[in-house]
Parts: sequence; structure tokens; C-alpha cells
Amino acid sequence: MAEPSPPVRFGILGCASIARKVARAIRLAPNATIVAIGSRSMEKAVGFAKENGFPATAKVYGSYDAVLDDEEVDAVYVPLPTSLHVEWAVRAAQKKKHVLLEKPVALNVKELDSILAACESSGVQFMDGTMWMHHPRTAEMKEVLSDSQQFGQIKAVHNILSFAGGPEFLKNDIRVKPDLDSLGALGDLGWYCIRAILWAFDYELPKTVTAIADPEVNDSGVILSCGASLKWEEGGKLATFYCSFLTTLTMDLTVLGTEGNLHVHDYVVPMNENDATFHLNRISQIGQYGAGNPVSSDRVITTDLPQEAIMVKEFCELVDGIIRNGAKPENKWADISRKTQIVVDAVKASIDKGFQAIEVVY
Amino acid sequence: MAEPSPPVRFGILGCASIARKVARAIRLAPNATIVAIGSRSMEKAVGFAKENGFPATAKVYGSYDAVLDDEEVDAVYVPLPTSLHVEWAVRAAQKKKHVLLEKPVALNVKELDSILAACESSGVQFMDGTMWMHHPRTAEMKEVLSDSQQFGQIKAVHNILSFAGGPEFLKNDIRVKPDLDSLGALGDLGWYCIRAILWAFDYELPKTVTAIADPEVNDSGVILSCGASLKWEEGGKLATFYCSFLTTLTMDLTVLGTEGNLHVHDYVVPMNENDATFHLNRISQIGQYGAGNPVSSDRVITTDLPQEAIMVKEFCELVDGIIRNGAKPENKWADISRKTQIVVDAVKASIDKGFQAIEVVY
Repeated sequence: MAEPSPPVRFGILGCASIARKVARAIRLAPNATIVAIGSRSMEKAVGFAKENGFPATAKVYGSYDAVLDDEEVDAVYVPLPTSLHVEWAVRAAQKKKHVLLEKPVALNVKELDSILAACESSGVQFMDGTMWMHHPRTAEMKEVLSDSQQFGQIKAVHNILSFAGGPEFLKNDIRVKPDLDSLGALGDLGWYCIRAILWAFDYELPKTVTAIADPEVNDSGVILSCGASLKWEEGGKLATFYCSFLTTLTMDLTVLGTEGNLHVHDYVVPMNENDATFHLNRISQIGQYGAGNPVSSDRVITTDLPQEAIMVKEFCELVDGIIRNGAKPENKWADISRKTQIVVDAVKASIDKGFQAIEVVY
Repeated sequence: MAEPSPPVRFGILGCASIARKVARAIRLAPNATIVAIGSRSMEKAVGFAKENGFPATAKVYGSYDAVLDDEEVDAVYVPLPTSLHVEWAVRAAQKKKHVLLEKPVALNVKELDSILAACESSGVQFMDGTMWMHHPRTAEMKEVLSDSQQFGQIKAVHNILSFAGGPEFLKNDIRVKPDLDSLGALGDLGWYCIRAILWAFDYELPKTVTAIADPEVNDSGVILSCGASLKWEEGGKLATFYCSFLTTLTMDLTVLGTEGNLHVHDYVVPMNENDATFHLNRISQIGQYGAGNPVSSDRVITTDLPQEAIMVKEFCELVDGIIRNGAKPENKWADISRKTQIVVDAVKASIDKGFQAIEVVY
């Protein structure tokens, strides 16, 4: 029997709060380990390592560069503010580190293309941190959507994603700062909505994107709520989304097909880590009055690992294939990041141009 | 003790299939009775009366005019195709009949204004047939939405309403015929969506309405699916809806507030006649990973009478007040019909003008 591969050795750039979740995911994934963290503040990095159960052997650095220079680091997880992604993801790739990059991956597709070019040039794996893509529920929902006998033709996808950040968030979070995450709610939440729409439509890009009036912005012009409609060439195939930092928690994805409808109410982060539900409805019309109508059927999917640990595991399988078996990087993840970013850019362009329809160009 | 009022005596114009539901509602309402039905086909009217449990004393006429000329008829229920509403609702009002008018009430607000003017001139009650308005759940949801401590400020309303008409419906139903119901899905389903949005926003009209590209239409140009976004003067207050005859049953209304969110999945026709549910969520953000997040709370509202019978009952209370007590007609119902129609017209105008934003003028 072949010896099992050693785990992929992760370095983490920065101490963002999302990094707590992913640090735990790296611990939980069977094929990953944390070997280093770097922060501009040594004190913060020491505290982070301690609070997040890093192995005693993990190195703590006072800079991101030190992580990239560490030859024991195979891969980096980059949860830095979006405005720093292009710089640090490119440098990581140049240092031959595989890149797990938090979303939104970049401020625009031009930046992302620099990152992807650096990854390609170094032959390293790229993946963005869209965790829900890796939940087994997602694969099971896709199976339902792809079954044309059961679901028919997909006509429309509607998506609402919101949380109420509250006063502290709206004042101090990096996601509302023009120099850190200038895309605001569009980058943080709209990213998921757009990804879900593209996922449902098998990553076929829409023909045009039109933002919905009016987004809310803060004093610095960062988007706090916005929405858009997307349309495809084919008649009647469309999608809408709405995302907001200003209203309470909603994570609704609705897919309307000619033979079935799918509803899921916690698609981004399942309300329970170990079982997740979606609802399939194949009723065409309301029944006779008084009869009591059949309700939709619930599908429950269980998982031992939380979705972020599955994400790490899948990333590490690809990395391991490259390191140990000379495999090529899996291009799918770069491709769907790029498509998502293109639509994010189109929504932003539509907002900036007074809600004009923007042609989507790959 | 005062003698109880005699029931309000209904005449029905036509044998539309929705009239079966309302005929049953008139039977169930404690203050209503059916005294007459008229159809252009005597045979159809006889059959309808027999199949729908009309009292033996009910008169069956071979014309609509005969119903309007019957002095025993206090009120008419008008389920005729929309293109006939203006003619027959005006004639009914001129004959001093109170008017319960099926939705959509008219092809445009100009027609509706003729109807409302005739009702006002004759001093008769007007009400449209939007049944869900009368369900006790609707009042309870409104209470939640109006509680600014519990729900905060309403930021957005999203609405999806769909059923899969199927081949027979798409070929022969009056709702897809250009000469009968030229508004198609916009009139039949969009009417409910727009009403729900206005209801949630306390009937404040939006500033602009923009249709979502692209609606689907049949060979005659009748809308089979469409959507729109609505925005208000106040920053960030918006709504979207999508309606379709082409995808399976969905009746989702989502209201997003700064302190609470409301979801209801069968708002137009409750899946059960006697108990109806809505979901209130006051969680601001996703909780700590692994913790298991609290789910939204369900509110269940029970009712003895189905919503359409409550509608008839409430209509008859108003009619009784006018007949017996010399009360004035309640203008609220005309007003909200008119506002709904104005927004329907704006969506239609936006579609016709290539998805331009249309200013809403009362």
C-alpha cells in the first residue's frame, strides 16, 4: 500500500476574522496542516496562533513576506482586504505557493487576471474561498437542477443575501472601507449571489447585467445594499439578486424550472454544520380549494466535515496532485472565479452608469 | 335585540372557473346569498348553478343584463375576462349594484377610473377580488411589519409568483388571449405581486418602476413571464417581483427589515384553508460556526372561513352598512385597486419602452 501523502502545509497571511474559520477548517481537513502565520503585527499573530489552536511547531512571523519565503509552506490562505489581493496573491504565486484566496478575489477582473497569470506561470493551484460550493448539498442540488426530466428547463434564479451588520460593523469593518474593500456588499455578498446564479446556469455568462435602482452607499461611497437583474440570450432566461448589509439574516436561493422549483434558505452558510436542507417542489399549480395542497419535499444532506473543511480538503487534493504526482492545476476554479468577477464588474459598471444594461464580455 | 340583517343578495356575471370558488365563498359567508347568475349561454348557467349548490330559488338568466335588471340583486360578482370589466362593472354600478370585481380590475387605469366614477356616482361599494388581503394572516403579518421595534425599517420587498399553466392553459385559457386578458401574467400574477409590495409599504406608491428584461410573450404578444423593480424616493427602499405562467408553483413574499425579515411561501392561496403560516426571522447575522444557528420562528394563524369567504363577508358588511344604515362606501378598496393598477400600467409601459424607468404618477 502506498504511503499516505503528508498533509499540505499552509501559511496564513493576516489575522482576519474569517481566518479563524479557515484555520479551524485546516485543522479539521485530513490532508492539511498549518505551519505558519504572518501579520504586520507580531503580537496579533502570536495571539491568533494561540487562540486558534495552531500546532506548537507553527511559525509566527511579523510579515507576510516571511511566510512566502518559508520553504516549508506549500500553500497560502489569503484573507487580506480585497485591495491587497492582487499584490499578495501574485507574490505568493511567484514564490510557488498554491493560492487559496478569500472572496471577493479582486477589485476587478484586470486585477484577477494578474493573479491568475501569476498562478498559471508558476503552475500553482488557484481556488477562491467560496465555501458553499464544496458542501455536498451543493452537488445534490446540482443533480436535481440538471435532471431535465424532473426539473425541466431552468427559467429564472432569484437570490437574496443579507445580514444586518450593525453600527460597529458599519463604522469599522474592512468591508465598508473604500481603501480596503471598495466593492462593499456587492463584493462580499453579491459575489455569492452571482456565483449561485452562474452555478445554476452551468456557468453560462449572461448577455447583459442591469443594476437595480437605488443601491445604498455609505459616506465614502461604499455599497451597503444593491441588486441587479441578469439576462441571457435565450428568451425569458433571467436572474435577479439583492444583497444588503442593512437587513437581518437572509440567504435565499430560488431556482424556477418548468417542472420543478428549488428553494434553499441557508445556501451560503448552513444553519447547522452537519445537516443541510433544500426544498424541491414539483407542484405545477394550486390544487382545488379546501383540499389541502401537498407541500414541497425536503431533502436533508448530512456531512461530517463543515463545508469550509471540505473546501480545504479539495484544495489540498489538487495541490497534492501537483506536488506529488506532477498533475496540472485544475483550471475550473480560476475560470468560475473569473466569470463571477466579470459579472461583479458589470453590476458595478451598471451602477456607475445610472443603471444602464451592461454587455457582459468574457 | 335588533333583528339580524338579511343577507346581501348576489348576482354572478358569467361562469368563469374562479366563480366556482367565489360561489362557494358566498355560500360560506354568513351574510351573503346567491340569488341569480347570468351567462350568454343559458345552458352553461343552468349547469353552473346546479354544480355549485345554488339555492333552489336562485334565478338563472341567459344574459348579464337580466342580472343587472333584477331588483332582488344587491351586489354583483364580476369574474368576466378583463377586457369586459369596464363595460359590465360600469353598467352594474349604474344599475345601483355593489361591485365585487375580479382582478385584474381593468386593462389600464383609465378604464378603472370609469368604473370607480360609476360606483361613486351611484354610491355603491367597490372591491376587487384580491382574496389574500382578507386572510387573518395578512392582518397579523401587517402587525409584525408595522412594529418598528420588532421589525425596524422596511428596506426591500421581493416577490415571486408562478404556476406552470401547462399546454392546455397556454393554448386556451382566457389569461393568454389578447382580446380577453391582454395583460397576461402581469395582470393575473403581477397584480398580486404589486399589491403585496404596496401593502408592505403601506400603499406608498414607488417613484419609478423598471421592468426586468426579458419578458416572455406568446405568439399574440401576451405576457407569459415578466418582472420589475420598483424604487421609492427614500434611499435604498426598493422592491422586485417576478411572475410566470411557465414555472412550477411558487408564491414567495419576502420582506426585509433592519430588525426582522418576514417570509411567506403561500401568500396568495394558503396551502391549507384553515391554517396558514409565516416565518419571522430576527437574527441579524450568522452565528459562530459549529454552534447551530437559531432558526426563524413560525407563526400559524387559524381560520374557520377560507379567505375568499372572509372577503365576501367583509364586502357584504360594507354593503349592508350602505343599504341598511345609510353609510358611505368604504373608499379604501377603490384606492388600493387604483394604486395597484397604476403600477401594473407602469410595468407595462416600461416593457413597451424597452425597459426604461417609468415615473409613477397617481
